[in-house]
Order: sequence, then C-alpha cells, then structure tokens
Amino acid sequence: MTTDKKKVVLAYSGGLDTTYCALYLSKELGMDVYTALGNTGGFSDEELAEIEDRTKQLGVIEHVSLDITKEYYEKCIKYMIMGNVLKNNTYPLSVSSERAFQAMAIAQYAHSINADYIAHGSTGAGNDQIRFDLIFKIMAPNAEIITPTRDLELSRETEIQYLKDHGIDANFEKMKYSINAGIWGTSIGGKETLTSSQPLPEEAYPKQVVKTEPEKLSIEFKEGELVAVNGENVAHALEAIQKIEAAGAAFGIGRDMHVGDTIIGTKGRVAFEAAAPLMIIKAHETLEKHTLTKWQMYWKEQISNFYGMLLHEAQYLEPVMRNMETFLVDSQKNVNGTVFIKMSPEQFLVEGIESPNDLMSDLFGQYGESNEGWTADDVKGFTNILANSLKIYHTVNNQ
Amino acid sequence: MTTDKKKVVLAYSGGLDTTYCALYLSKELGMDVYTALGNTGGFSDEELAEIEDRTKQLGVIEHVSLDITKEYYEKCIKYMIMGNVLKNNTYPLSVSSERAFQAMAIAQYAHSINADYIAHGSTGAGNDQIRFDLIFKIMAPNAEIITPTRDLELSRETEIQYLKDHGIDANFEKMKYSINAGIWGTSIGGKETLTSSQPLPEEAYPKQVVKTEPEKLSIEFKEGELVAVNGENVAHALEAIQKIEAAGAAFGIGRDMHVGDTIIGTKGRVAFEAAAPLMIIKAHETLEKHTLTKWQMYWKEQISNFYGMLLHEAQYLEPVMRNMETFLVDSQKNVNGTVFIKMSPEQFLVEGIESPNDLMSDLFGQYGESNEGWTADDVKGFTNILANSLKIYHTVNNQ
Amino acid sequence: MTTDKKKVVLAYSGGLDTTYCALYLSKELGMDVYTALGNTGGFSDEELAEIEDRTKQLGVIEHVSLDITKEYYEKCIKYMIMGNVLKNNTYPLSVSSERAFQAMAIAQYAHSINADYIAHGSTGAGNDQIRFDLIFKIMAPNAEIITPTRDLELSRETEIQYLKDHGIDANFEKMKYSINAGIWGTSIGGKETLTSSQPLPEEAYPKQVVKTEPEKLSIEFKEGELVAVNGENVAHALEAIQKIEAAGAAFGIGRDMHVGDTIIGTKGRVAFEAAAPLMIIKAHETLEKHTLTKWQMYWKEQISNFYGMLLHEAQYLEPVMRNMETFLVDSQKNVNGTVFIKMSPEQFLVEGIESPNDLMSDLFGQYGESNEGWTADDVKGFTNILANSLKIYHTVNNQ
Amino acid sequence: MTTDKKKVVLAYSGGLDTTYCALYLSKELGMDVYTALGNTGGFSDEELAEIEDRTKQLGVIEHVSLDITKEYYEKCIKYMIMGNVLKNNTYPLSVSSERAFQAMAIAQYAHSINADYIAHGSTGAGNDQIRFDLIFKIMAPNAEIITPTRDLELSRETEIQYLKDHGIDANFEKMKYSINAGIWGTSIGGKETLTSSQPLPEEAYPKQVVKTEPEKLSIEFKEGELVAVNGENVAHALEAIQKIEAAGAAFGIGRDMHVGDTIIGTKGRVAFEAAAPLMIIKAHETLEKHTLTKWQMYWKEQISNFYGMLLHEAQYLEPVMRNMETFLVDSQKNVNGTVFIKMSPEQFLVEGIESPNDLMSDLFGQYGESNEGWTADDVKGFTNILANSLKIYHTVNNQ
Repeated sequence: MTTDKKKVVLAYSGGLDTTYCALYLSKELGMDVYTALGNTGGFSDEELAEIEDRTKQLGVIEHVSLDITKEYYEKCIKYMIMGNVLKNNTYPLSVSSERAFQAMAIAQYAHSINADYIAHGSTGAGNDQIRFDLIFKIMAPNAEIITPTRDLELSRETEIQYLKDHGIDANFEKMKYSINAGIWGTSIGGKETLTSSQPLPEEAYPKQVVKTEPEKLSIEFKEGELVAVNGENVAHALEAIQKIEAAGAAFGIGRDMHVGDTIIGTKGRVAFEAAAPLMIIKAHETLEKHTLTKWQMYWKEQISNFYGMLLHEAQYLEPVMRNMETFLVDSQKNVNGTVFIKMSPEQFLVEGIESPNDLMSDLFGQYGESNEGWTADDVKGFTNILANSLKIYHTVNNQ
Repeated sequence: MTTDKKKVVLAYSGGLDTTYCALYLSKELGMDVYTALGNTGGFSDEELAEIEDRTKQLGVIEHVSLDITKEYYEKCIKYMIMGNVLKNNTYPLSVSSERAFQAMAIAQYAHSINADYIAHGSTGAGNDQIRFDLIFKIMAPNAEIITPTRDLELSRETEIQYLKDHGIDANFEKMKYSINAGIWGTSIGGKETLTSSQPLPEEAYPKQVVKTEPEKLSIEFKEGELVAVNGENVAHALEAIQKIEAAGAAFGIGRDMHVGDTIIGTKGRVAFEAAAPLMIIKAHETLEKHTLTKWQMYWKEQISNFYGMLLHEAQYLEPVMRNMETFLVDSQKNVNGTVFIKMSPEQFLVEGIESPNDLMSDLFGQYGESNEGWTADDVKGFTNILANSLKIYHTVNNQ
Repeated sequence: MTTDKKKVVLAYSGGLDTTYCALYLSKELGMDVYTALGNTGGFSDEELAEIEDRTKQLGVIEHVSLDITKEYYEKCIKYMIMGNVLKNNTYPLSVSSERAFQAMAIAQYAHSINADYIAHGSTGAGNDQIRFDLIFKIMAPNAEIITPTRDLELSRETEIQYLKDHGIDANFEKMKYSINAGIWGTSIGGKETLTSSQPLPEEAYPKQVVKTEPEKLSIEFKEGELVAVNGENVAHALEAIQKIEAAGAAFGIGRDMHVGDTIIGTKGRVAFEAAAPLMIIKAHETLEKHTLTKWQMYWKEQISNFYGMLLHEAQYLEPVMRNMETFLVDSQKNVNGTVFIKMSPEQFLVEGIESPNDLMSDLFGQYGESNEGWTADDVKGFTNILANSLKIYHTVNNQ
Repeated sequence: MTTDKKKVVLAYSGGLDTTYCALYLSKELGMDVYTALGNTGGFSDEELAEIEDRTKQLGVIEHVSLDITKEYYEKCIKYMIMGNVLKNNTYPLSVSSERAFQAMAIAQYAHSINADYIAHGSTGAGNDQIRFDLIFKIMAPNAEIITPTRDLELSRETEIQYLKDHGIDANFEKMKYSINAGIWGTSIGGKETLTSSQPLPEEAYPKQVVKTEPEKLSIEFKEGELVAVNGENVAHALEAIQKIEAAGAAFGIGRDMHVGDTIIGTKGRVAFEAAAPLMIIKAHETLEKHTLTKWQMYWKEQISNFYGMLLHEAQYLEPVMRNMETFLVDSQKNVNGTVFIKMSPEQFLVEGIESPNDLMSDLFGQYGESNEGWTADDVKGFTNILANSLKIYHTVNNQ
C-alpha cells in the first residue's frame, strides 16, 4: 500500500497519551501512522496482543512490537549490576535506563521504513521527552520529531473525550496510578508522588505481599553476571532476574520512593517496586566486598555513580559510557560465587557468601583474632611510618 | 601516694583483654596502673560503677571514666550525619569513629598525669591497634606505647586462667559474642563473623524485637542537625539520637553485617545493630534530596565517602578532615524540615518530608504533569543544543 | 527625563557588536538605551573615556562604567588562585570567569533603574550568550532579554555599514583580532583560532617581549592570598596581580592556546596571554606542595577542577560553588610563605620556596638521606603490612 | 659451580650503595652474590660493559643485565602517555614508575635461580626501599630480603673507605649529584634538592642546551600511541620517544623540580629533565582535547591522577591498576592525528593538531562565529531550561 501521505513512526505504549497521539497524527495531521512498542520485559503476551488490537482500531498502518529485553540486558542492565547502580543510593534507574533502548529501537525502525516523522507522547514536564528527543535526533536525524502531547498541553479529560468522539473507548479512566513496567523494575506515579510528604498506599503497588514466612534465596554470579538461582543454572541472566523477581515480589520486597533531579532542572518524585534489582545489587555488592580490593571498590563506585547519572540524563550515547563499561567488565574477573539471602515481608537480608576468590581468607590471619602473616612488631613499624606525615604536620604547625 | 614505679595509663573497657592487661602491667611489669575508660554513650551508670569496682580489685591506682559522648557528637557524629556516611553503603562506622575519640581522651589524660607509658589491649589482627597507636604517637609522643595482648599473642583461655590465678574471677566465659556499644551503634563479633557465609543468630543481638505493630516516627532537622523527635524539641542532638534509638531498637531496626577492608590489608566481617544511625541517615539524605541541588548532592557524596574512609583508617587527625567538615557544614544551610518514617519489625520506610526549603516546588511546574516556567519549544531548543556534542561526535567518527 | 519609551539596559563593551546593538535598540526598536560596561580591570581610563564618548554619539540615555574588579577578585579570582584553577591544565578561565561578574553587575543595574529589557551582543555560537542569558534570567527576572546580534545573525560587514549609514564611523575594520582583556588575562581570537592547526602569529599578542635577560621575582602568600611582591607588601592582592603581570608581560610569559568544550557542545579554540595568572598559580601550587598534606592536595584538585568546570559553564550561582569556596578557604591556613621565580623570554621557572609551614622539614629526616623519626625495622614492618592486601589478593587468585 | 653458600640476588645499579652491598654480602655475609641490573633505557652499551667489569672485581658469581625497556613501555609508559600522567601537574614519574619494573625483573630472576636472599641498596629514607620490598615480598616470597645500606645506616665516606680497603677504587667521590636515568626521564638529586628554596645550577643537568634557533617537531599518534616523528614512521613507540628526547634535549626542554609526598610520609624534592615525556604528554593531551568529549577528558583525568598516585606509591600490582589501564586503552580509539610543536631553548609550544577525529569540526558551526546546527531560539530554550534548577533554588530560598 502506497500513499502520498507522510509516514510517521510513533513510540507506542498502549497508554492514554500515545493512543491519543496515534489518532491525532492520523486524523488531524493526515499521516500514515506506524506504531512501535519497545518491550523491555514489562508486557505479557496477552497485553501485547491487546495493544496490537487497539492499534487496529486506531487506523494504524503497521504495528510492531520490538522485543529489546535481551539487548537492554546486554547493553545496560549488565553494567548496572556490575556497577551496583542505585541513583542516590535508592533507585535502580528502572525507567531512566529502559527509555534509551526503546528510543534507539524505535529510531532504527523509523530509519528502516524511511519515515518522514518520528513521534512520542511525552509531556513537557518530565525526563522522557529529553530521552526520546535526544536519541531520535542522533539516530534518526532525517526524521522530524513530533510531540502532540507536549505541544498541545492537553488534559487527560480532553484526550479521553477526543478518543470517545472517534469511537475509541478504552477504560483509561480507571487508572488512578500511572505504571511503567520493565524487567528492571516498575515505577508508579500518582497524586501522592506529586507531594513531598505522602507515601503511596499499599494497594497502589501492582505486586502484593502474599508470603509471610521467611524464605531463603541463593544467587550465583560468574564474572559479575548471574548464572544460577537457588542452585539451578539459568540459560541467560534474564531468566535469573525473572526468578529472583518472582521470589521477591511475593514478599513485597523492593518498594521505595525516590526523589531526584530531572534533566530539566526540577525535582521529581516516584514510587517503585523492584525486588530483583534491589536484591541482585545488594547481593552483587556483598560478593564484591569479599572479592575486590579497597581501591577496586572505590573506583567502581566513582565510575558507576557517574554512569548512573549520565544514564538517567539521556546520555547513553556519550562515548565515556563505553569506556566506563569496559572498566566495569574488567573489574569483574574475580566476582565469582554464591550469595545467600533471607527474604521476609517487605525486606531481605544478605546473610553471607561463598567464593573461590574470597579475600577474607584465613591464609594470613583472622580479623581481630590472629595474625599469621605478620608480627606485632611489623604493626608497630607500620603505625610508626603511617604516623609520619601527621607527626610532621602537627609538629610543624603547632610548635 | 608517690612511688618510684613507672606510671602507665591503660585504655580500659572492662573486657577480658584490658582486665588482663591491667593486672599484667601491675604484677609483671611492676607499674603504677591508671585506667581510663572513654565512654561514648555505650555504658549505663551501673556498668560504669561495676567497671570501677573491678579496677579496685586489680590494684589500679586511679580509674577515670571520661564521658566524651558530647565531644564525639560535636566533632564527629554531626559530620557523619551531614555526610550520610555509611561505609560501603552499609556500616555507620560505629566502632571505627569512636575509637579515635577514646584514644584522644586517653592520650590527653596520660599527658595530664605525666604518664611514662600508655597501653591498650588490642590484638595484632584488627583495626583498633592502629587507631590507638597512631593517635597516642601524635598526641602523647612522650609516653611509650605498651600492648601486652598484641605482644604476647595470648589466648582467651590463658588470660582467664591468669586472672583466676590472681583471684579475679569475672564471668568472662559466658560471653560468646564480643560486643562494643556506643551512642552510634553496637558491633557484634562471634564465630559466625569469622566466616564469610554465616549470619548471626537472632539471639546474638543485644536488642530484641519487642514490637510488631507499625509505628510512625518524625525527625526534624535544622541546618542538618537533629532538633526534634515526634514534634518535641530536644535539648541536644544526643537526646534525639537516644530517642530514635529507643524507638527503632524495639523493632530490631538497623541490623546488618559488614565486610570491609582493615587498615592492615585484610578483610574483616562484623555484625551490628544501629537503629538510630540508619534511620537518621536515611531521613537526612531524603531531606537533602529535596533541599540540595544535584551538584551539592554529588559533591557531598564524594567528600563524605572519603571522609568515612579516612575516619575508618585512623586518619581523624589528617587536616583534610577539617576542610571536609567545613564543606559539610556549609552545605547544610537549607537542610531544614521534618522527615516522616514508618517503623515495622526489622525495617523502616521514609514516607516523606516537609521543608520550607523544598526544591520540589510547584512554582515552575509539576514533575511529568505541567510546566509553568517553560514551554514545549524551550525543551526542544534545550534538547537540540544538548544533542550537539553527541551529534558532532557521532557524525565525525561514524562518517 | 521621562518618556513613554521602553527602557533597555545593554551590556556594552565598546566593540562592534555592542555598538551595533546600541544603535539598533534605539533606532529600530525605539527604546531608551542605557549602556553599562562591566570593567574587570581590562580598560584604561582613556579607553573608558573613549567608550563613554562613543555612547553619546549613539544617542544613549545614560552610560555607566561599573568597576567590578575588586568584587571579581574577592568573589572569584581568590578562589581560582586557592584552587590553582587551570581549565584542562592550560587556561586560567580569563574570560569564562569575568563574564559572570559583568552579567551580575549589569543585571543589578537593570534592576536598579527598573529596566523593561536587558540586552547583550553575543552571537549564537559561543559561551558568552549562555553566561549572560542565565544570570540575567535569575537576577533580573522581570527584564526581558534581547539579543540582536544572535537573532539577526548579522555579518561584521553589515554591522559596519549600518553604523556608517547612521554616521558612526569607528575604525572597526582594522581589528584583525578580537581581544578581550581583564585583570585575569587577555584572550585573543582570530582566523588562526578557527583552525585546529595554526598558532597565532607573534604580532597578534598585545603584549610584546621586551626583555631578554632573566630576572628574579618573588611572591609572598598569606593564607593563600597574595601579600607581597619582591619583598614589598601590597595594599591589596589586585596590586600584586598588576605588578606580577607587568613583570611577566615584559618577557611575553603566559602565552598559550586552549581548545575546550563550549557550553553548547561544540569545541572552541582561543589564544591567550596571562602572565600573572600562570605565574601566580604555579607559585601558589608549589607552596602548597610544601605546606599541605597529600590528601589536602588531592581533594583540593578534585574540587577545584570541578569548580573551574562549573565556572566555565555559567554556573557561578550554583550553590555548590559556595560550599567549594568554603572548602578552599579552609584549606589555606598554612599556605604561607614566599615563592621564588626566575623569568626568561616566554617562560618562567619556580626555583623554590620559603615557608614557616614547610612540611619538607628535617625534623624527622632528609629525603633519601637520613631518617630520624623511624628505624629500618619500622620500614620493614610498614612494608610487610602494606603488602598484606596484595599478598592475599595474588595468593588467593593465582593459586 | 656449586657451593654450600647461600645465594643472594642483588639489585645492582653500578652506584656506590649497591657496589658496597655486593662486596658486603660476599665478604661479610659469606654469600654467593648474583647481581642483576634492570635496564629501563638509561644505560649505554659502554656503561653496561663497565658495570659488568666492576662486578667481576667484586667477586660476583654472575651478573645479568636485564633489558626491560620494552616491557616497561608496554606495561606502563604507554598508560602514562594515554593518561597524561604528571604527578601534581609536574613530574612524569620517571623514577617512581621504572622501579616497579626493575623490582619485578629482579624478583623473577631471583626466582629463576632459586635464590635464598634478595637484596637492594636503598636507604631507609626514601621511596625506593618500599618499591623494592613490596614487590619482592609478593613476587619472590621465598627469598628473604636483605638491605645493608638501610640496616647499617652507613655514610657515603664509610662505604667508599670499605671499598678502598678491599681494593675497589671507583671514583665515586667525584659525583656531586646523584643521577638516575631511564627512557622516561632523568632525576637529579644534590645538596640543593635537600633545601626547599634552591634551584639546581645549570651545569648539574646532564643534557646541556646546545641549540638556540627554534625548530619544529611533529608527533603522530594512532589510538593514543606514538607512530611517527617528523613524518617518519617508527618501528616501535620507544624509537619515537628516543627521537623526541634527542630533539628536545638539545634545547634543554623538560627541566623542572618536583616536591612530593613520599610513601613514608615525608616530603621529598627532586630535580629532573624529561624532554620527551613533557612534550609527548602535552602533545597527546592537546590531541585529546580535540578528539575526546568533555566527560571522557574528565574521567580520564580522574583515573589517571590516581593511577599516577598508586604507581608512585609502589602499588603497580594493585588490581585496580589493570582496570584503569583497560579504561585508558578503551578511551584512545579516536586519539589519532599529528601534533605540531615549536621547540626553543628550555621551552616548547604546542602549535596545533590535525586529526581525522577532530571534534572542532565546522559541520555544525564555528566557535563564536556561526551556528549551522541550531538557531538562536534553540539557545534561548536551552538557557531557559538550564536556568530552571537555579531559578527554583534562588526563588525558594530567597523568598
């Protein structure tokens, strides 16, 4: 089917904003609309089918569901685990990180079908607009960007009415909370997250606590990557993440709220649930404490902290990110072993680790108990030399 | 009472090692023994009286109990709160930090009584020996350091027998776990902490979980310092810490294990309970996320991370610590407000904050919802300029 | 004099762009034009008088020359010296730093006369536009910003013709190089700086080499601030800077080229001459190497590097800058003493220092020669303990 | 030849201290002495032959000259270039870095001949003792370390007399300055470097200024490594270093003094000449300013600064060094091109660069002149968004 119409590729999520955009681009702008959904592991097959059905109602020429979960793991999640990345010691960058991969997949699709335009449904008040804009500009420079939600500053009600007027009557009203799900966590926004003081009510969390008796969980890493859960090898790290998520979600593990700096200079608050990310990162970090040296830990933290900041700020394509990833991979050679976790309702405890590379070896002594590799006199000499710079400083300056 | 004997000041804790040392210094080395206990808030009046009694049995010339809790707060805890200091994102440096203040107080006491020697009971296998040695060398350079436990490499059994032989029969045997308590947390060592894999059994924790129904707790900060708990002003921040500790300890909040790098190059593992430190730091950090800018948060973290490392490594007297403290204090001008916490068994959640300096203001828009201070076109321009360096990089290098 | 006309304050430098703007704002936009020049020490009294005369020709209502050199020193240069700030180890941020102070002074003036508009003459291709825009927006939020040069994208020729057509015939043509002078250095742009490969010809530098025989120069610092030159006390650090500049400029010291990242994502190249900044910073840094500890040096460098980056990027009003300045001042307590420099044509050498706080003291030994404060056995013990972590690492991982 | 005597390997340099040690180990300790010289490019063939002859006089069983220059380049110099490593912005770590490679080569040799002891001639007052001790302990753990110079605290005169008494009469007296030469620079110690204030006299520098007319030099890099000098390809980067050194040394380029923190806590001062290191690093850094992004430059500097610190402090075997090297190599992909230098007596100027990866491209505009890739309105939007966080901060906190 060929037309004279302009081709537009729309980043489609199935939500209200992008559903509005699909119809608007077709009806008001007279374009041939192609919708593309970047699936990072947050949609079931049923949900994907339902979304595809909806696009048909909207008169979309073609809908594609791009499964980028594996690519997202290989090019990003892996490094966030290796780097123990938690923004401001809290948030596993669930949404921040997946947007880049959705944007890249959609830009590539737009390029492949030679689209004239590329569209997204983000508002003018958040981070996602920057992530989409920036990556579209770099990876699909020939497609002009259209952003109806941002440009028209429409209210939710107006969008729903417009859809109804065109015979589209999805039950968008019922959704009190805006939910974004992916393999690396689910974010939840609602009226409470617009305040600084209110927590999310229990029922707002998609995954409810269903277990009360503590359970054990063991996670095995090889060179910093997930290879087994509860003693069973996994075919791919993604499988491990899914198993760990299922185990932790039953306990409601991984709920918290984050307030952070947006790319546009405001503060934004979001609730999230991320059982797997939080347990995996704490487990991985504990294993590293046993297997890496002090300066490896220190530098990994420096680099990962900034890696997370740049990732959050839409800078995935900044070349320093590749240099940092190389550092992180190189640091993981000895990050091998199993981590033991105890899960309880809404909490977990890392109980210990076993590793062939464990530096808490008793080859040279036991902490606080015995020293095999050195003598009391060695320590006295050590302290005497260690004291030199301070002795000199305090003698010179207090005399 | 004057003697020809040499004067020694012993850092005394009431435990087995230092009790052995007191007797040894007196009986074997023929010294006049002065014992000094540096109390950082971990001893009750009863315990202090009991310890003083014991020193009398040991033939100590004079025992002093130095209450340094306030000084410890003013010169250290305050900065650890301002810096949200958790070693490797876990441990509030409970022991690491208080040792410096005990050592300084004891060195000053030794200086004041013109002691010939200064002694501590640390083994040759841990961090404390370095902390005592280093500070003694700098602050009491004229007193020679004696360390019987380290030099003689005695076993627990030998020490107990020696004490029994001299008629001292404290029930040291019963203590399966070695406990160190102070206002900023309690550390617990035992046979499990000598392994990498085993957790501490529940009963090993001094403070047991006695409440099961969730409770709320509110903490108020003024310029980064604690000023009120549950709406009631406190006379001093120490009072707030005690109240918060009491509230959290009833829920068994703040238990965890830490494995870290010792100053002597080994790895050491320790369990701890620190309800107040963990709740205060998470509360303070959340308040900062609302009141500080991105770069303030970033630089505070850089500096505090290193501050904690140096503190852990016996470097309290390093002059850069003073420079860092100045930075931290200067960063706290706007860290004002109240933080709301929900406590449950072995966990807590920061639910939100209220602050006159909250930068999550809706003066200019609401995150993800509305933009008052800028337009859609502003963001487009922003992204276009922000993309410049990456557009140039990818165009130049992929052409 | 009251009119119905709108009031505009124009940041005026006397150059072609701002001269064009003055006339344009008056003639084309029909505004009452007020010109304000922010003098950071780069104009002689004759130049200032000449510029004021020119504004009269242009029909300007009022011209003010704001002498902000002292404020610029107290609020910025001082910290750049304390921090040894050289962007990418090269450029003393001559222009980058003074723009903020010019913008702030002009914004305050605009506020004081209740201006409706505030204007600057920067193009759309450099850093200065961002520095003016950003500070105007924050400090004069009620005055709308007008930028004719940027908006109209006029060529040099068009501007000259327009001025001629209105009877203004300054000899703008003759200036092959665009020069920006201030107390903290002079930047020079020309056709060579638009290339990556060409150096500036000798004659393009305003200050020519007039001395060939080496001369000595001594600089004295007290708490990191300049207090004397060649043994003579100065009334204010600015006087020291002027004397050092005069001494060094006669040798052509301080010429170099810098290529750096602009705020808008491009690379920009600039030549500069900055005798005083380069000699002062190298002198100050050498004094610090003698008087600060290793970690003070390290952290000062971390902080100052970022301070320079933010300053360059128009972020002078970011609150972390104040926190950093506090750190820098606090680090300077012991930075006292005299630094000896030998100047030769286009180069200088720091020959040595004298300081009451010199940590290269022979109290404890002489480097490589003798050790007074420790023994050979102390060092053996030191190294044995220092080796621990590596012994453990290599034993565990290579076995 | 087999004996019952113990085998000792001595790190031999041909200087007074190690010559004394060789004789002492043989005569006084009755050992079979094997001498090993780690040549890092600082010895001519004649010097090596002369040194070998001397060992014969000393009754050494076997003397080996280990040429480790290439290994030193591949495992260290390469990374110092990629990282632009200058300790405290001054010193190319000439001695600090080569000691590690000498120690490793000698430890391997000791291991290969199954030595009972391993010896070095360092005093107890410098850095080298730590470098040798530490690496010997890790790489030759079965050989006990002997250090006669350190242990006996002998004076220069005593050593000379002892040698004379045994018929060894090298003219050690004549050497007023202690010189250490390697491919990466020459360090010079003397009575002036023991003061803080005195420069080295001109004649103390081994390489004298012999050219006065400026000359040009061009250096080509490929992925951060040296590939050509003055347009001629080199077989190996070492050849380039030698050519650049020869060119620069004729102008006396690269002389300076450094004062730094020793590993044992004192300050030490040293003079050096390092024409090639200083020109190569400045050239390489300039090329990077054109080819790397801002954040690549920033992170390279962070990492390299610490890399240099650890290298200086004998920590070459710390595993984080390998991670850092991986980062540095990965950052060099686009560091390709030619750098143009002008050399004059005791100075040089980097005049410009040419690179296929030059990001100072005019694809999108020319700095300060024209903007092709964006409009004036884009910049206005950019600045408006960029101002957000500061507008909010100053509005909230100054209201």
